[in-house]
Amino acid sequence: MATKVGSGNDPWSAWSASKSGNWESSEGWGAQPEGAGAQRNTNTPNNWDTAFGHPQAYQGPATGDDDDWDEDWDGPKSSSYFKDSESADAGGAQRGNSRASSSSMKIPLNKFPGFAKPGTEQYLLAKQLAKPKEKIPIIVGDYGPMWVYPTSTFDCVVADPRKGSKMYGLKSYIEYQLTPTNTNRSVNHRYKHFDWLYERLLVKFGSAIPIPSLPDKQVTGRFEEEFIKMRMERLQAWMTRMCRHPVISESEVFQQFLNFRDEKEWKTGKRKAERDELAGVMIFSTMEPEAPDLDLVEIEQKCEAVGKFTKAMDDGVKELLTVGQEHWKRCTGPLPKEYQKIGKALQSLATVFSSSGYQGETDLNDAITEAGKTYEEIASLVAEQPKKDLHFLMECNHEYKGFLGCFPDIIGTHKGAIEKVKESDKLVATSKITLQDKQNMVKRVSIMSYALQAEMNHFHSNRIYDYNSVIRLYLEQQVQFYETIAEKLRQALSRFPVM
Amino acid sequence: MATKVGSGNDPWSAWSASKSGNWESSEGWGAQPEGAGAQRNTNTPNNWDTAFGHPQAYQGPATGDDDDWDEDWDGPKSSSYFKDSESADAGGAQRGNSRASSSSMKIPLNKFPGFAKPGTEQYLLAKQLAKPKEKIPIIVGDYGPMWVYPTSTFDCVVADPRKGSKMYGLKSYIEYQLTPTNTNRSVNHRYKHFDWLYERLLVKFGSAIPIPSLPDKQVTGRFEEEFIKMRMERLQAWMTRMCRHPVISESEVFQQFLNFRDEKEWKTGKRKAERDELAGVMIFSTMEPEAPDLDLVEIEQKCEAVGKFTKAMDDGVKELLTVGQEHWKRCTGPLPKEYQKIGKALQSLATVFSSSGYQGETDLNDAITEAGKTYEEIASLVAEQPKKDLHFLMECNHEYKGFLGCFPDIIGTHKGAIEKVKESDKLVATSKITLQDKQNMVKRVSIMSYALQAEMNHFHSNRIYDYNSVIRLYLEQQVQFYETIAEKLRQALSRFPVM
Repeated sequence: MATKVGSGNDPWSAWSASKSGNWESSEGWGAQPEGAGAQRNTNTPNNWDTAFGHPQAYQGPATGDDDDWDEDWDGPKSSSYFKDSESADAGGAQRGNSRASSSSMKIPLNKFPGFAKPGTEQYLLAKQLAKPKEKIPIIVGDYGPMWVYPTSTFDCVVADPRKGSKMYGLKSYIEYQLTPTNTNRSVNHRYKHFDWLYERLLVKFGSAIPIPSLPDKQVTGRFEEEFIKMRMERLQAWMTRMCRHPVISESEVFQQFLNFRDEKEWKTGKRKAERDELAGVMIFSTMEPEAPDLDLVEIEQKCEAVGKFTKAMDDGVKELLTVGQEHWKRCTGPLPKEYQKIGKALQSLATVFSSSGYQGETDLNDAITEAGKTYEEIASLVAEQPKKDLHFLMECNHEYKGFLGCFPDIIGTHKGAIEKVKESDKLVATSKITLQDKQNMVKRVSIMSYALQAEMNHFHSNRIYDYNSVIRLYLEQQVQFYETIAEKLRQALSRFPVM
Repeated sequence: MATKVGSGNDPWSAWSASKSGNWESSEGWGAQPEGAGAQRNTNTPNNWDTAFGHPQAYQGPATGDDDDWDEDWDGPKSSSYFKDSESADAGGAQRGNSRASSSSMKIPLNKFPGFAKPGTEQYLLAKQLAKPKEKIPIIVGDYGPMWVYPTSTFDCVVADPRKGSKMYGLKSYIEYQLTPTNTNRSVNHRYKHFDWLYERLLVKFGSAIPIPSLPDKQVTGRFEEEFIKMRMERLQAWMTRMCRHPVISESEVFQQFLNFRDEKEWKTGKRKAERDELAGVMIFSTMEPEAPDLDLVEIEQKCEAVGKFTKAMDDGVKELLTVGQEHWKRCTGPLPKEYQKIGKALQSLATVFSSSGYQGETDLNDAITEAGKTYEEIASLVAEQPKKDLHFLMECNHEYKGFLGCFPDIIGTHKGAIEKVKESDKLVATSKITLQDKQNMVKRVSIMSYALQAEMNHFHSNRIYDYNSVIRLYLEQQVQFYETIAEKLRQALSRFPVM
C-alpha cells in the first residue's frame, strides 16, 4: 500500500524521484517508482500536498470503494480500482496516474497481470525484436517528429443515456449510445465499458501517450439527471480526445470498441485486446521513425524538457482550477445574494416613499422600484453566468490536468530507459551484454525519444487550439455578461424623472 | 440614566409609547417620554434592537467619552455630550435624537439648563402669548401648509481646513473657512463652533424642525487627512442642508454664525443666542398660519401619519445602509482579490506556455498575458468603484438617517400637546382651566399641526430631489463601470489569434 501513497497520490513522485537517483536501491529497477514515491512522501509532506492539489483526493483505504463500484461492475472485479476514490476536480490526475504508475511496478510485485506491462529491459535488450504486423509510423515535419495523421478523421457522438437493468432489475445501470461520425452506426456502452477501454489504452499506449482518465465514477446519485448529463458531457469530451489522436483513433482496440457488430464480436474483440502483447514499453517496438538515431545527451535533454514543461503546466492548470472554483462559489453564492438585497432595499424604500401622501412623486417611486427589480435581475444573471463561461474553462483545465497527470509515469519510463543505456558500458565491460546489445539499446531509446517528441508536438498543437478556443469563449461570454448588465442599468436609469 | 436607555437609545420609544397611553402615570406629563421610554425598553427589547438599527450605537456610560471630547473643547464643558459615543453610521439618528429627547424631560429633572426647553403647558396654557418680534410665517400652497421660502437663497462653502493651535501649542484644532455665497465674506469656525450652532438650532427649532446631527466627533486621528476631508465633506453637506431650510437659514443665530464681523460681535451674538427665550415648544408662538384652525381629529391624523411615515422611512434607510456597507466591504475586499488571482493565474499559464519551445504560439501567449493583465485592471476598477457611486448613496442615506432620528422627539412633542387638549375638557370641568384657555389650546395645537405639515412638505420635496439625484448618479456610475469592464475585455478578446 506504500506504493499507493508514493506514486498514487503524488503524480510527480515517479520522475522527480528518479532525479534523486536512487537507482542503486536494493529494490532494483522495477520497483523504482515505488521506492521513489515512498521516499518523496516521507521526505517532503508539503510538496506532496502541493502536488496533491486538493484536500480530499485520497479518501482512505479503497476496499469500501470496491463495494460501491461493484454495483456498476458485473465482470471479473478489476483490481485496478483499488485506489480510485477522488473528488471530481482531481479525478483526472489522480486516477490516470495512480493506475499507470502502479502498472510500472507490476513485474516485481507481479500481482495484477491484468495490466502488467513488459519491462524496459525486455524492450531494450531483446536480441531481435519480432517485426510486428502493427506499425506506428513517426515522420519528421516542420515542427520535428510527429505522428502520421490519418487522411480522414472522425469524431464520436455520445448521446441518449438510458437506464438499463439486469438480473431481473436487481442491478441497474446507464447505457450511452455512441455514434462514430464516419460510420454513423451506433453502438451502446456502459460506463464500465468505457473504463475497460481506458484501461486497455492505458496498458497498451500508456508508456508513450498520456491517456486522460475518465470522469471519475460516482457512488451515490449515479442516476440523478444532473450527474448523468455531466458524466455524458465528460465522456463525450474524452471520446473526442481519443478520436483526435492519430495513434489511439487508429488502434484496433479503439476501432473495435466503436464498430463491433454484435455481442459476440464485442466479446471476441475484448478477449483479443486483453491478450495483446504489444503493450507497455513494448509499444515502442511498433514505431519506426524515418530519422537518424539521436545521441543520448539530446535524448536526455528532450526528456528533461518535457518533464519540466508538463510539471510547470500542471501547476499552472491547478492554480487556475483553484481560482476558478473559488470564483464559481462566490458568483453562485454571496454575490447574487447581495445584489438581491440591494434590489429589495431599493424596492422597499420606494414602497415607503409612495406612502408619503405627497403629490407628484409617482414617477420617482416607479423608477426606484424598477431599479430595485433590475438589481434582482442582475443577481440571477450573476448566478447563472458561470455555467456560460467559467464552466468551459474549468472543464478544459480539468481535462488537461488529466493529461498532465499521466506524464510522470511516461517520463519515468523514459528516464528508466535512459539510465539503462547510461549503465550499458558497465554491463558491456562486465560482459553482461554485448556491444551489439548496447547499440540496439541506443537505437531503441532514440525511438522512444522520437515517440515522446511526436506526442509532445501533438499535445502542444492541441493545447494551443484548446486554450485559444476556451479563453476566447470565456472572454466573449464575459463581454456579453457585462454589456447586458450595463444595458439593464441604462434602462433603469432612463426611467428616472429629470428635475 | 434610565431615560438615556428609554428615549436615548430608542429614537422611537417616545412617540410609540405615548400610543400605549400611560398618561396617568404618577410621573406626570413632563416625564412622559421617560416613563414611556423605560416602559417600552423593558417590555420589548427586540423592538428596541430593531429601532436601534445597529449593534454598537450605545457603548456604555459616556464619562470616558467626555474626556476624549474635552481635547477639542476648551469652552465650558457641554453636558450635552454625556451620551455621544456612536459608530459612524449611526451618529446621525442617535445623537440628534438622544439630545433632543433628553431635553424633552428637562423640566422635571431640571438638570441641564443648557437646553431645558419651555414645556408644552407653558405654550398651550399661557393666557396671552407675548407678541414676539420674531415671526415665522406659514402659508397654504398647492401642497398644503408650507414655510415661506426667501426670494434669494444662498449656500455656504466649507473649505480650507487649517490646523490651528492655542495655549502655546498645547492644544491644536482644525479650523474651517466658511464662505456664504451671498456675501462672499469668509468666517472661520472650529468643529466645536459647528457643534455649538447645532445645539442652539436644536434647542430653538428642535420641536418643529428636524436638525440633523453633525458628523460625529472623532477621538483618535482627528488630524489625519482622510478624516479631515471626510468631516469637511459632511460639514459641507450639513451647512448646505441648513442653508436650504427657509426657517433655519433666515434665523438670527444662523445668520450671525456666518456673518459676524469680529471676535467681539461673535461673542455677543453667542451670548444672545444662548439667552433666546423663543425656544423649544415656545417656537410655535412665533408662527402665524394664514389658515383656519384645524379640528383635533384631523390634527391627530396628520401627526400619526407623519410618525408612521418617518418610522417606515427610517427602517428603509437603515436597510439600505446595512446592505450598502456589506456591498462596500465585498467590493473593496474579497472581490478584487479574486479578479487579481484570476489575472495572475492566466499570466502564469501564459509564462508556462511560452516555455514549451513549440513554434508559433507567441500570439496566443501574448493574448493570454494581456487577458490576465485585464483582470488585474478589473480588480482595481472594482475596488475603486464604491468611492464613485456607493459612497454618495451612503452619504445621502446617512444624512436622512440623521433627519429621521429627530422625528420621534418632534412627534412626541406634538402628541403630548394633543393629549393635553384631549384632557382639557376634564380640566375645564374641574375648572383647572377656563373655556377660553381650552379654545386657545386648540388654536395653538392647530398652529403646531400647520407647522408640522409645512415642515413635512419641505422634507418631502427635499427627499424627492435628493433621492432622485443620488440614485441617478449611482446608476450612471454603475453603467459606466460595467461598460468600461466590457470594453476592456473586448480589447483583450481582440488580441486572440483566429484559428
